[in-house]
This record gives sequence, structure tokens and C-alpha cells, in this order.
Amino acid sequence: MSAHSHEIEEGLVFLPKFDAAGLVTVVATDVATGDVLMVAYMNDEALRRTIATGEAWYFSRSRNALWRKGETSGQTQRVVEIRTDCDQDAVWIRVEQIGAACHTGRRSCFYRKVEADSGDARLVFVDADRLFDPNDVYKQ
Amino acid sequence: MSAHSHEIEEGLVFLPKFDAAGLVTVVATDVATGDVLMVAYMNDEALRRTIATGEAWYFSRSRNALWRKGETSGQTQRVVEIRTDCDQDAVWIRVEQIGAACHTGRRSCFYRKVEADSGDARLVFVDADRLFDPNDVYKQ
Repeated sequence: MSAHSHEIEEGLVFLPKFDAAGLVTVVATDVATGDVLMVAYMNDEALRRTIATGEAWYFSRSRNALWRKGETSGQTQRVVEIRTDCDQDAVWIRVEQIGAACHTGRRSCFYRKVEADSGDARLVFVDADRLFDPNDVYKQ
Repeated sequence: MSAHSHEIEEGLVFLPKFDAAGLVTVVATDVATGDVLMVAYMNDEALRRTIATGEAWYFSRSRNALWRKGETSGQTQRVVEIRTDCDQDAVWIRVEQIGAACHTGRRSCFYRKVEADSGDARLVFVDADRLFDPNDVYKQ
């Protein structure tokens, strides 16, 4: 292992490895249930604001904009713990989710499971109740 | 919402949205504890093999190769459940992890937490015991 990768993997300096677009992948889990709520991205500024404020900020690839989780919907995330992985290109945050994490109104974005169906795969809804109506929350 | 995005978000057809490199992001969590074990990637073939075999296959970006988790280390992952998210560009697998998920020998790749330290951030080890010695497992 090179001295550099030793520092990345075993060091105590936080050196997030942003990709070519300046982003790290972030997994948010529900501190109460352990469920994965969403997978999203942070740029350097979103990461700094998340650490400084204790509320989750992300960077939206589709809107190309910094984004405080819940700024439109009110469904904010209080960050209980932040971890990084061995090569520091991913971040895991454990959060207290207010309401629903998903823009469809569900608690988690992962509301469908994949089932093998004689060689093929199909989806089955699980935990798919909506906590809010996205048509009310996100005005056109 | 367009008919297409309605189908992606509310449909029962599994239509994984691979990125420009042909990959989807995968989060593997420990079915016993809910901990995030690793964040990695699957291409279409890795996803198919994972669904067909019930063992986790990934695509290594650094080695540019399909990879059965544990094929070198023996630390395999039995897949209990596979979910996809609203826009189907991420996959969450709940696994029974044999031994350690991380190539450093730790149970999870997320063995350091990020702590705010008067404006700056530093890392602190958590759950950092090694279950194997990587020097024994990965021969040079």
C-alpha cells in the first residue's frame, strides 16, 4: 500500500475524494430503523454545511444546485452521525428524518424490492404508504 | 410528471438506470445490524448474477472487472433482499456478511466517523477491529 493510500485508509484527516463532478456519494439511513432512506450526493460546500449545521445538505445533479434537504417539503434530516469509508469517496449519515425522505412522499426512496421471477426480475412495493402528497408539496 | 418518469417511479418493471459508465450505485447493509457495510457499483451483468445466484457480485471501477464479493478473501455476502429507489439509479441490498466486508479487514468500510472540531473536521475510529489481516488475504 502506498503512503498516500495508507493515509487515506488509516489516517485521521478527513480527505473526501470528490469525483470528476466534484461530488461524493452519500447514503442516508434512518437512525431509528437502520433503513436506507436515500442515496444522494454532496459537493464540498454541502458537506461543510452538513457538518457545520447538523442538518443534511446535498447537491442536486439534476438541478445542478446546492440543496438543503426539506427546504421545499419541510421534511428535514437531523444528522446524528457522519462516517466515511476506507477510500473516503462515500459518506454514510445516520439521520432523524422528519416525515418522508422521498419526493414521492414515501418514508424511504427504496419502496420497491426486486424479485427474481423465473429468470426475469420484477418489482414489488414494500413500505409504500405516502406520508405526504407530492402534488401538494411541490407546486408546478 | 412525464409518463416515462411515472413508469420509473411507480411501475413494477425493473428498469435500472445505469450511468455513463454502465454502473448503478449499490449500498450493502448488514441484515443483522442495519449498518452500512460498503458502497460499491454493479454493471448489468453483476446485477443479473446477484439476482440469479443470491450472492453479491460487483463491478470494480479500479480493476475494471466483474467481481464476486469474497472470491479472494472468502468474505462473501448472501443477499437477503434487493431494493431499488424511486428513480432506479441506486440499489440497496441487505446481506448476511461472512466475516468482513472491507478489504482492510473491518466488518464495515465505514469504520471512521467525522467529527466537527471547532470549524474543522477530523476522523475518529469506531468499530475498527480487524477480522482478518489483509496482508495474509491479499497476496502481493
